[in-house]
Amino acid sequence: ELSDMVLGVRELSKHLASIQIKMKVRAIMILTKTYDRALIGYTRKLVEWLMEGEKGSKYTVYVEDTLKDAPEFDAEGLEQKCPGYKSRLHYWSAELCAKRPHSFDFVITLGGDGTVLYASWLFQKVVPPVFSFSLGSLGFLTKFDFCAFEEVLSTAIQDGVTVGLRLRFEGVIMRRIKGSKDINTNGDIADEIFSGAALRPPTHTPGEAFVVLNEIVVDRGPNPTMSSTELYGDDMHLTTIQADGVCIATPTGSTAYSLAAGGSLCHPEIPAILISPICAHTLTFRPLVLPDSMVVRVAVPCDARTTAWVSFDGRQRIELNQGDYVMISASRFPFPAVQSKPDNKDWIDSIRRTMNWGSRPRQQAFS
Amino acid sequence: ELSDMVLGVRELSKHLASIQIKMKVRAIMILTKTYDRALIGYTRKLVEWLMEGEKGSKYTVYVEDTLKDAPEFDAEGLEQKCPGYKSRLHYWSAELCAKRPHSFDFVITLGGDGTVLYASWLFQKVVPPVFSFSLGSLGFLTKFDFCAFEEVLSTAIQDGVTVGLRLRFEGVIMRRIKGSKDINTNGDIADEIFSGAALRPPTHTPGEAFVVLNEIVVDRGPNPTMSSTELYGDDMHLTTIQADGVCIATPTGSTAYSLAAGGSLCHPEIPAILISPICAHTLTFRPLVLPDSMVVRVAVPCDARTTAWVSFDGRQRIELNQGDYVMISASRFPFPAVQSKPDNKDWIDSIRRTMNWGSRPRQQAFS
Amino acid sequence: ELSDMVLGVRELSKHLASIQIKMKVRAIMILTKTYDRALIGYTRKLVEWLMEGEKGSKYTVYVEDTLKDAPEFDAEGLEQKCPGYKSRLHYWSAELCAKRPHSFDFVITLGGDGTVLYASWLFQKVVPPVFSFSLGSLGFLTKFDFCAFEEVLSTAIQDGVTVGLRLRFEGVIMRRIKGSKDINTNGDIADEIFSGAALRPPTHTPGEAFVVLNEIVVDRGPNPTMSSTELYGDDMHLTTIQADGVCIATPTGSTAYSLAAGGSLCHPEIPAILISPICAHTLTFRPLVLPDSMVVRVAVPCDARTTAWVSFDGRQRIELNQGDYVMISASRFPFPAVQSKPDNKDWIDSIRRTMNWGSRPRQQAFS
Amino acid sequence: ELSDMVLGVRELSKHLASIQIKMKVRAIMILTKTYDRALIGYTRKLVEWLMEGEKGSKYTVYVEDTLKDAPEFDAEGLEQKCPGYKSRLHYWSAELCAKRPHSFDFVITLGGDGTVLYASWLFQKVVPPVFSFSLGSLGFLTKFDFCAFEEVLSTAIQDGVTVGLRLRFEGVIMRRIKGSKDINTNGDIADEIFSGAALRPPTHTPGEAFVVLNEIVVDRGPNPTMSSTELYGDDMHLTTIQADGVCIATPTGSTAYSLAAGGSLCHPEIPAILISPICAHTLTFRPLVLPDSMVVRVAVPCDARTTAWVSFDGRQRIELNQGDYVMISASRFPFPAVQSKPDNKDWIDSIRRTMNWGSRPRQQAFS
Repeated sequence: ELSDMVLGVRELSKHLASIQIKMKVRAIMILTKTYDRALIGYTRKLVEWLMEGEKGSKYTVYVEDTLKDAPEFDAEGLEQKCPGYKSRLHYWSAELCAKRPHSFDFVITLGGDGTVLYASWLFQKVVPPVFSFSLGSLGFLTKFDFCAFEEVLSTAIQDGVTVGLRLRFEGVIMRRIKGSKDINTNGDIADEIFSGAALRPPTHTPGEAFVVLNEIVVDRGPNPTMSSTELYGDDMHLTTIQADGVCIATPTGSTAYSLAAGGSLCHPEIPAILISPICAHTLTFRPLVLPDSMVVRVAVPCDARTTAWVSFDGRQRIELNQGDYVMISASRFPFPAVQSKPDNKDWIDSIRRTMNWGSRPRQQAFS
Repeated sequence: ELSDMVLGVRELSKHLASIQIKMKVRAIMILTKTYDRALIGYTRKLVEWLMEGEKGSKYTVYVEDTLKDAPEFDAEGLEQKCPGYKSRLHYWSAELCAKRPHSFDFVITLGGDGTVLYASWLFQKVVPPVFSFSLGSLGFLTKFDFCAFEEVLSTAIQDGVTVGLRLRFEGVIMRRIKGSKDINTNGDIADEIFSGAALRPPTHTPGEAFVVLNEIVVDRGPNPTMSSTELYGDDMHLTTIQADGVCIATPTGSTAYSLAAGGSLCHPEIPAILISPICAHTLTFRPLVLPDSMVVRVAVPCDARTTAWVSFDGRQRIELNQGDYVMISASRFPFPAVQSKPDNKDWIDSIRRTMNWGSRPRQQAFS
Repeated sequence: ELSDMVLGVRELSKHLASIQIKMKVRAIMILTKTYDRALIGYTRKLVEWLMEGEKGSKYTVYVEDTLKDAPEFDAEGLEQKCPGYKSRLHYWSAELCAKRPHSFDFVITLGGDGTVLYASWLFQKVVPPVFSFSLGSLGFLTKFDFCAFEEVLSTAIQDGVTVGLRLRFEGVIMRRIKGSKDINTNGDIADEIFSGAALRPPTHTPGEAFVVLNEIVVDRGPNPTMSSTELYGDDMHLTTIQADGVCIATPTGSTAYSLAAGGSLCHPEIPAILISPICAHTLTFRPLVLPDSMVVRVAVPCDARTTAWVSFDGRQRIELNQGDYVMISASRFPFPAVQSKPDNKDWIDSIRRTMNWGSRPRQQAFS
Repeated sequence: ELSDMVLGVRELSKHLASIQIKMKVRAIMILTKTYDRALIGYTRKLVEWLMEGEKGSKYTVYVEDTLKDAPEFDAEGLEQKCPGYKSRLHYWSAELCAKRPHSFDFVITLGGDGTVLYASWLFQKVVPPVFSFSLGSLGFLTKFDFCAFEEVLSTAIQDGVTVGLRLRFEGVIMRRIKGSKDINTNGDIADEIFSGAALRPPTHTPGEAFVVLNEIVVDRGPNPTMSSTELYGDDMHLTTIQADGVCIATPTGSTAYSLAAGGSLCHPEIPAILISPICAHTLTFRPLVLPDSMVVRVAVPCDARTTAWVSFDGRQRIELNQGDYVMISASRFPFPAVQSKPDNKDWIDSIRRTMNWGSRPRQQAFS
């Protein structure tokens, strides 16, 4: 019976969204905001605790190479404490993360949601499981209170962790090859995008590409007037966006900029692409939830009056010229976020906390 | 590698949302608005064409029993046309649909979106594939123009059809057993809902249950003041809803009442529950997209000042008294809608059409 | 110069919205929720203080007639306290308020925003200045903390008060006279509404009429499906409302139901009618701000499928049948709310408080 | 009676918003998009018709100085047609408009809404009455179809016109004087703004100032992250804006960018300032309607992480540095728009047209 198969896939899908793993821990990477002196102090504390190990374990700990000479970190002092420390204290660089992500069994972030986003940024392909610790109030992406780090990490290393695989998007900027217009006389960008093999030579060439955890935004950037771009889902034209811009968010990003643009809050297990216009000048473009199996393209028409700008997780901001487009699809490399509660329950917690939903909490059942 | 498995499930999920089937057609059910005389005429025309059959096929055709004596339908005249017709013209009733849904190989609806919803209503469990024909402009649920019915049906019967499995919800009204309060002294509804086996005897008993294709709405009904209800996802309290009501929609329903309540448009392949407040009196309750594997409950607190009303696809409207709740989950029986285009492309078409997105259509590629 | 005259009127308008008055106080009416025992206690305390008077003043105090026999109020005990009290303790009824509003020099409300609305309800024409005291947190309409009532009232009686004249609307239900259709063959409601003297005999007759401080709502009431009504501004058709309903709010009402329907927050000095659709099924009906010199009508077309219901400040709920309409215009009788700060500054305070805008208050200037 | 006075002011205010004037016409200015060749042709046609005059009138006509040598305009050919033309064909420049606005009895614009905005831009102080002609479909600001220009202008000159006085805002950029911090040690911008004479020397000095017809926007401009600014109404802190920006619109501007930001549609007679956040990161900042007698300030805190940018009617874009603010108030110089219908009825028309409200127009009464 077909409907049973559907049920089966639904269950499977749920299990994959939140999986239990037991790690054999040897190397741990620590990521923090190194310009924040207080955080360096906490990092030092954390490194020391990891160095000491429990039950004879001898972890290798990586901290950012900028800490090597930071007086607050005092690497030298740390190495003097115990002769074995020196060989087990390593320094990571962005390059190491990019080239050899398997060097780390897991990553600990110390800071706010921005630090977690930075972890995603460093690991554009495979990402080690990420423990996100916060020093103040928890956010949407920071799930553990640093006050209890010893207990949290001990338990995790011993019993394993539950990891939520957060969907990420890959965005590739497709640059229009100069002179393409000669080949394809009408200069219609949809023709060029979808003509596939029909057109020789090709009209576009891939440019910069980035993986995001929250969102890709195409907007007018510094242009004084609104941008007009074309939105495609797979090979279908969806709509012409006459707006300040458009936000294409993951479920994880649904609590960030996408929310400000009017999008819905979306549970991280939903395999979706959230598309929301930013200050649309047409009243009929409402936020859209599409399957993550689709490929979304946002194109600047060849005859557009202005260019547009694309940004990735609020970091890079790159200009799209007339005829260029950005192609967005689900990344093969999700972001494995260690959860503080099973079944993505901590997502609900973060929503309740941040939206002030908990103002009148109901008692839970005996258990 | 885990990420490959995730990719696999994503693909599988996509395929299941839109499947190709080849039917061995023997019995066809026709559904229309029998109070509309023009539609009865078209129904007659359709029945005649089906009776004649193609290539010697001899279908059994079911029309609504109220047509038996309708002069516009003229069953007698039809039966006189050909001796074999009499034995192959049957009459369906709501009871037959409910009890023996397998009597029909497929269903043809003739009318608007409301007629398609009615088909979903008649088949609360297994639903035969549904062809939805419209006489005027196409809607979100009506996908074929009746003008071309001969060609559409011939091709379908011969070559098979693509069917989109539309998610439906089951809503069960849970009535609080009188006297429960004595057992569970504090009368907290969350305690009662989630206490499970801990409480003997049980506090609630299942009442009416309905399957919906669009949405379940809990609102204040005829009450003059807003309702205050509690919203739960699985065993977690999400928020207290202080609003005119709440709309819990399927992706199919995202283009109906849910849109009016401020929800996003949601592609039918997304396995989601869309929760949107109706005129929320708190600014922080934003529309929510949850996985269809969750169980959602909306409860009227025992100490609420007013009751609430629940309605199913805009049809039934049933009062929820203090202490009652409605429990909503994905139905095991999806709604198989025959598609006019593969891969749910007709959903995009319906959006473009209805939102006036097509005002500036871009040319599509050669193919 | 014309532009100077415009400036002058702007200033005049501002001054009228917030005027200083000095009252000669003789009779004071007290209004509270008489089903709330705690409030009766506070009322007793307030009455006693007023009876004692300051500097020999001898006020007449009116309390609700239902308190006459309330043990918590203990009228007898009060009268025994001092021989003069008996002749100065009076009882008001809804009828007295309606017929002789000039009996009171001012009104004191004790309770929440609902109690202030009730004061507006009792005085459908002239309203005495209203002091609104709250026992808990202040609301949009309650402006004084009861804890400080002695000081507030002493100062007010001695120095005078600043009164904000809050715009109210009058809504009149216009009933279609049976048989009108014979006269005006096409039955078009716009024809009937605006034909004026051209049609003899008239097509509509005025029915119930109420004055509101917050809003008039026309909605589907207990009807299961959305209502379709016609909206007119003066003699112009604005739009056909396909929605759950429409909210027509005063600036005072902009913080109540109108906000839930998506309307803007509107300063009470603005002479405006705020029209907001409730769950509109068309995306292009956006909230509208019209001048209070316009007359707004909401009509149920003669051929509508369902009736509609109109409610006044959330109280009365009256059915509008096919052909009926409600006519809304600025009332000649504003609501004089005693302000806790001059220039309607307390409105900004109430917004800041309720919207949590004050979360990061900036320091104010020395003064 | 006070309430009668209120009524009187309300009526007066309504009359001033839409006044009848009879002009003694001698000099007419024509404004068009001089880069659009087709428009130059129409301009030529219009000039010729005005030159010929009716009933012996001899108008002086001003066209933009850039047309002097435009072949499509062919000034020489025009002057040869009739000897008197030469002396009556003049050329205007932006400088003339700015310095001697009384040179023109009225202005004719030929183009879209942008051309009308440009007229407002040219006349920063006194504005002559403006006739706005459109060649295609009418907009919110263009009210006359150029096809009928002869009839429209003849009637206007002979019978007089109705002019709607559209509210404009003046925005002044206030620059923080370097070294102010030394004086006012805490660097709190509210202290500095409102300290008035208390602080010597002053902390801010006025910079650029512009008058707008639509809106003033303060946003993040090219900055990649949201801006954080402080919003003040008169001397009260309203809220901290954590958003992409804030739009401060006139009622005229309520149909432009303000609408895209989520603001209400506001009738031009309403004396209001419309404040709407742009992609607010706090859910509780809802659009706000304030009286036009208030002074609104948007300030960049001294300790802000980024600057902000202010733009005027979408034209200038000027950076606000930390400590700077923009001060917005009603301009003494409204924009006199010649109306095609009395009582601002053409505003309702423009709304109906642009929002597709007219999809189901109701018949109007006999008249």
